Amino acid sequence: MAQAGTGTGLQLRSMARKDGILELSLVSVPTPEPKPEEVIVRVDGSPINPSDQGLLLAGADMTTAKASGTADHPMVTASIPPASMKAIAGRLDQSMPVGNEGAGVVVQAGASPAAQALMGKTVAILGGAMYSQYRCIKAVQCLVLPPGTTPAEGASCFATPLTALGMVATMRSEGHPALVHTAAASNLGQMLNKICNKDGIGLVNIVRKPEHVALLKQLGATHVCNSASPTFMDDLTEALAATGATVAFDAIGGGTLAGQILTAMEAVANRTAKEYSRYGSTTHKQVYIYGGLDRGPTRFSRTFGMAWGIGGWLLTAFLQKIGVEAAQKLRERVAAEIKTTFASTYTKEVSLAGALDLGEIAVYARQATGEKYLITPNR
Amino acid sequence: MAQAGTGTGLQLRSMARKDGILELSLVSVPTPEPKPEEVIVRVDGSPINPSDQGLLLAGADMTTAKASGTADHPMVTASIPPASMKAIAGRLDQSMPVGNEGAGVVVQAGASPAAQALMGKTVAILGGAMYSQYRCIKAVQCLVLPPGTTPAEGASCFATPLTALGMVATMRSEGHPALVHTAAASNLGQMLNKICNKDGIGLVNIVRKPEHVALLKQLGATHVCNSASPTFMDDLTEALAATGATVAFDAIGGGTLAGQILTAMEAVANRTAKEYSRYGSTTHKQVYIYGGLDRGPTRFSRTFGMAWGIGGWLLTAFLQKIGVEAAQKLRERVAAEIKTTFASTYTKEVSLAGALDLGEIAVYARQATGEKYLITPNR
Repeated sequence: MAQAGTGTGLQLRSMARKDGILELSLVSVPTPEPKPEEVIVRVDGSPINPSDQGLLLAGADMTTAKASGTADHPMVTASIPPASMKAIAGRLDQSMPVGNEGAGVVVQAGASPAAQALMGKTVAILGGAMYSQYRCIKAVQCLVLPPGTTPAEGASCFATPLTALGMVATMRSEGHPALVHTAAASNLGQMLNKICNKDGIGLVNIVRKPEHVALLKQLGATHVCNSASPTFMDDLTEALAATGATVAFDAIGGGTLAGQILTAMEAVANRTAKEYSRYGSTTHKQVYIYGGLDRGPTRFSRTFGMAWGIGGWLLTAFLQKIGVEAAQKLRERVAAEIKTTFASTYTKEVSLAGALDLGEIAVYARQATGEKYLITPNR
Repeated sequence: MAQAGTGTGLQLRSMARKDGILELSLVSVPTPEPKPEEVIVRVDGSPINPSDQGLLLAGADMTTAKASGTADHPMVTASIPPASMKAIAGRLDQSMPVGNEGAGVVVQAGASPAAQALMGKTVAILGGAMYSQYRCIKAVQCLVLPPGTTPAEGASCFATPLTALGMVATMRSEGHPALVHTAAASNLGQMLNKICNKDGIGLVNIVRKPEHVALLKQLGATHVCNSASPTFMDDLTEALAATGATVAFDAIGGGTLAGQILTAMEAVANRTAKEYSRYGSTTHKQVYIYGGLDRGPTRFSRTFGMAWGIGGWLLTAFLQKIGVEAAQKLRERVAAEIKTTFASTYTKEVSLAGALDLGEIAVYARQATGEKYLITPNR
């Protein structure tokens, strides 16, 4: 049943050198012969998520990027600011494959029945090194997509949908009645609106531009607050009061927004307080920072009592915490609703070489809201 | 068995007026006739804890304090900065009694056997309004002190000892192997050293002055780091590595210290990491802010991966969480070791009128490490 060996394939690599230079390149790697439990997936689509960019760009200043190499084997170099070097000490001088997730067709399968059953199927996969033409992976790691799903449609089955579902699950497991999301016009934010509308969950969207308010309202969002508006704190407080949201998921990280959210939550909690307490309300208010669109420091004045928390939130840690079975249920929901709730849209498709084009890098490295690239390694 | 009624007694009051003026005064209040389950305690000692000063001073700028009134009924007024007014909106124009805890002798008792059993006993009490000559309180709220304990020795049975024990209990219940404490030369910090030495728990002390390093070393502390030293981050990292501490309790709140602690914890966690992860270590690192010696904003750069949290920690919330029985066990340990592990020292004793002396206010409002006042309302 196994198709003939695929030989070699191109793979995108990122190397942060000890001398402070980032090197992006394409290398030819041999496609391994799959072990009995493994399959070879021809990767037909893999998104450039915000979560990929840290590994890909290593904190380099991409305005310093220079192109070299050939059309088939392009190379890009850029300077890594000294401030970024400490955070990447563990990866220096290692040529690292990139790309958390993708989708494609199983073109070769190991001898086991589980692997053989996947031959020819379109599957979504997670596990790194997806910016490659061929990816060898265990059969159990493949999520079979419903018939009629294209690899482009299935390429973003994990990071964004599972993060959105993970936020809702975290909200529920910690007993919060509703949630807040920042940078809410993002792909993830739009998906979260679809989930919350479908499941009847209160959601407060925070965006930074008037056009994003309009976009989300059009998608059916009830509460959208613009943090650039002079009435932001009042708007936010009313939306929190209307929904009861006491947990927020923040993609921005830097600046004062996390503290502002806690302050508004505390104002709502104190509306129903029966007597004054100098320690503030007893309602626990939580902000989870899951992204770093603003890489600057986080700053807050502690004007929200004592019952509060700010912390990191990471999808992989969440999935480990809920266990294999619960995680599998979330994945199956994604596959079942991949063309509706969890549909992703891409502003551009590029080849592996295209992902190393200086013009394209300048666009996707900006991480502008709503802009999302899909790499199509075999086109 | 009930002693003759005590008539009236002086009580210290704090009122934050709508016009932005703080008024501190002494008023004469009638001592109530105790109900069957209640007793009247003659308050012989009540500390001025950091946790009392928020209610007492209402965020006023005490450099603007002015004295008026008479020697027996002094009054102090001071301006409350506009920035503080929002946080105290719930208490404006209310004359509030102050003083979280104290100790004294039961001088009158209600008819119930539980109340009668306390007649003449020296007890420690918690519940507010302790800056009073007499305090009516339920018998079950009285912690009977071991024979031979003076009210001054028992005056600080709750806030400081239970906070120190609560930190250790929180550390254990969240699975951290050891803990960090800031402003560690405080009364609380010294107590925490005694507990950790006795119970064999790893403790990293952070102080801000060389003389506080010496003080804690003399008390038997193993790890003391001076945040004002140029080698602070290295010293802290080594102390964290030696103890394995992954939780910190921070009395300071403002500034960069919380983030520095997380950064050092992450550096230790990454020493044993097997491979590079751009999301940082999987070790959860936690800072609890329980005080506000620096009222300024908290600032941190997120250079410690994704497995971290910063949050408020409040003794009353902790005690509620562990439940009545577990809390009672902690109280009994405090009573049993009140002359050793939980001994408090005071730098000055003042009367109720003395607590309103401008010179004394200037000293205790400074909240200098190691300085602690005891109010003796009946001297």
